[in-house]
Amino acid sequence: MPVNIPPLTPEQLLPIAGVALGIAEAGIKKANRKDLLVMVLDEGTQAAGVFTQNRFCAAPVTVAKQHLAHAAICALVVNTGNANAGTGEAGIQHALATCAEAGRLLGCATQQVLPFSTGVIMEPLPVDKIVQGLPAAVANCKADNWFNAAHAIMTTDIVPKAASKQVQIGGKTVTVTGIAKGSGMIRPNMATMLGYVATDAVISQPLLQEMARYAADHSFNRITVDGDTSTNDAFIVLATGKAGHAEITRQDSSEFAQLQQTVTAVAAELAKMIVRDGEGATKFITVQIEAGKDAGECAKVAYAIAHSPLIKTAFFASDPNLGRILAAIGYAGIDDLNVDGIQLYLDDVLVAEKGGRAADYREADGQRVMNQAEITIRVVLNRGSASTTVWTCDFSYDYVKINASYRS
Amino acid sequence: MPVNIPPLTPEQLLPIAGVALGIAEAGIKKANRKDLLVMVLDEGTQAAGVFTQNRFCAAPVTVAKQHLAHAAICALVVNTGNANAGTGEAGIQHALATCAEAGRLLGCATQQVLPFSTGVIMEPLPVDKIVQGLPAAVANCKADNWFNAAHAIMTTDIVPKAASKQVQIGGKTVTVTGIAKGSGMIRPNMATMLGYVATDAVISQPLLQEMARYAADHSFNRITVDGDTSTNDAFIVLATGKAGHAEITRQDSSEFAQLQQTVTAVAAELAKMIVRDGEGATKFITVQIEAGKDAGECAKVAYAIAHSPLIKTAFFASDPNLGRILAAIGYAGIDDLNVDGIQLYLDDVLVAEKGGRAADYREADGQRVMNQAEITIRVVLNRGSASTTVWTCDFSYDYVKINASYRS
Repeated sequence: MPVNIPPLTPEQLLPIAGVALGIAEAGIKKANRKDLLVMVLDEGTQAAGVFTQNRFCAAPVTVAKQHLAHAAICALVVNTGNANAGTGEAGIQHALATCAEAGRLLGCATQQVLPFSTGVIMEPLPVDKIVQGLPAAVANCKADNWFNAAHAIMTTDIVPKAASKQVQIGGKTVTVTGIAKGSGMIRPNMATMLGYVATDAVISQPLLQEMARYAADHSFNRITVDGDTSTNDAFIVLATGKAGHAEITRQDSSEFAQLQQTVTAVAAELAKMIVRDGEGATKFITVQIEAGKDAGECAKVAYAIAHSPLIKTAFFASDPNLGRILAAIGYAGIDDLNVDGIQLYLDDVLVAEKGGRAADYREADGQRVMNQAEITIRVVLNRGSASTTVWTCDFSYDYVKINASYRS
Repeated sequence: MPVNIPPLTPEQLLPIAGVALGIAEAGIKKANRKDLLVMVLDEGTQAAGVFTQNRFCAAPVTVAKQHLAHAAICALVVNTGNANAGTGEAGIQHALATCAEAGRLLGCATQQVLPFSTGVIMEPLPVDKIVQGLPAAVANCKADNWFNAAHAIMTTDIVPKAASKQVQIGGKTVTVTGIAKGSGMIRPNMATMLGYVATDAVISQPLLQEMARYAADHSFNRITVDGDTSTNDAFIVLATGKAGHAEITRQDSSEFAQLQQTVTAVAAELAKMIVRDGEGATKFITVQIEAGKDAGECAKVAYAIAHSPLIKTAFFASDPNLGRILAAIGYAGIDDLNVDGIQLYLDDVLVAEKGGRAADYREADGQRVMNQAEITIRVVLNRGSASTTVWTCDFSYDYVKINASYRS
């Protein structure tokens, strides 16, 4: 079960002026399941996005990147149940056909629609079902539909993921609302498996793109469930420009900083929800690396710990078998690492220093922290002033169960 | 259960003239368990080894490296139940005390003994129990004791791992016998978690060291169970010089090549046994990457596949959800990879080409191969002439079970 995600209610999610959302049951993989989402954007909305760096990127990712670069976006279409990845040239045609039909229904060009898919890889997209489902999704469009939209993009997710925040900019209230999905194949690199954040802020597209990159780097790009970087990752930020404040045009303005902070906070909340709902997760683990020479080596150590099946299974068992963390630090790839200079903490408990177990460490203290549902692993490298935080979860029987039966 | 390891019998293991092995029950972690091994070497035996590159390397690894560099080796001592890793300065003293006692019993210097430990990390080595157990192990020493030795070094291993081969060199029969242990925390980098190969061949130490490096690179360094590089990996090659042929002194001689081939064959057989007995393994998977630009990029792709929990759980389930393999190829880190040029095979079945599923691929063919206990994943990159093979296993409920309860 997901780790400490409070139940979501429709009222928590604030509408964004200029964004309408509609869902439908297209029967893409299973019957009676909401599996199609359309987001319709008012004219003047700026769109920005970052996408997976997987070389086998999905057809909709290829198409969405092209459309984003060349046209004003009027709609997004998202389907679950099929990733349209590893589908070659036919996949590109299917993604374009989806955009063409959405454009026809909404009165805009194919190039003004961004397509997204998530689900099983290397199976042909049932594009006819999507085309047949689109009219119902468009007819369902309304502003206060974020709650249903969060449900419509789920795959192996147990709970929907959504968040809203507000900030005052230039005397006006600006709202930011986002949804995301993902629970397995999670080790985003530049974006995650479908995250959408919208705001009514007024901002130029180049600055919005900067903000999307920054928010991804401080949220989705800091999480990992299983180390598998998906073929379909995409993180989109939309700004409808309806909030009524003066347009944000400078990256060094306080208004940019305020909005960036709020967008990043929504993205980070969504990203952490993905980890809390990681496949089979029973614990939420924060891996915090401090006093490294640079961010790169901090990340190496953080991911070595966050990806180790031995560490993740020990956390599942609440077993303070913490020597496994030393082993992961040791193989993280820092060649000149002096292990005698490192401190390892579990929450506030000093576990290891001077190359071995700390003199005052008692197993009962380690056990107390291991029994918690939320744990921070803190490694102080004592080599410099860089730091990195990565969020991950444990590794349970249920991860194996979910992924041994995903297609059935 | 281990995948296709035939039962081992004492008769299969040929003695090596100049090597005697003795075991004992020292009660290091559990009572009534063979947990201590002594290997006594005749004068004139050459020893060579490669060790873990984990920066948190175990105290016995540090000591063994020093002793190997500075003295003629007369004995090896191996304990299971405790890794003596992450134990700081006290760990070094414990490893040295073990060597001193073995040396005293055998009439050689502390520096002539190599210590090895395997088991739990970051707990003090019960050196008193080892010292008390050594006389019994020394008294047990005999040449035809490889079978018992293979048992005495096991930890979570289900079956013992050992192999013998013979080769004709300079008109004489040369014998090579080896033992190894390991089943979890297996992703060796320069050696594996305890492998010992002995031969009666006559060869100089520098050439033996070359051979140890080559054999490790083509055996233990090509396997992975869980991607966790151990703190205690060590692979040792011993040559007693009793076979009676002229000493091998040139690396470009046919005698060197013959011996290297035989030593590597024994090492590869042991390494594959470790994967077949990988924690929770139900399948033995060969990952073969061909036609890459260089060996480095082939290895990146091979390990991305071999370490993916999503792929490993699909193989456990015999589910041909093979798009996950494309995803792993895509995130392996080859930036200029053209995915349209790749072919993916499962044994003889062409699964994917031209960026997607092959036109003639039928799920029934994929299912037929997936049902097997031994499967080859073959990826043809079509970028050059380099190739790499890695051996791994699947990821089952039992891996989680074993590692969630390892210390209890």
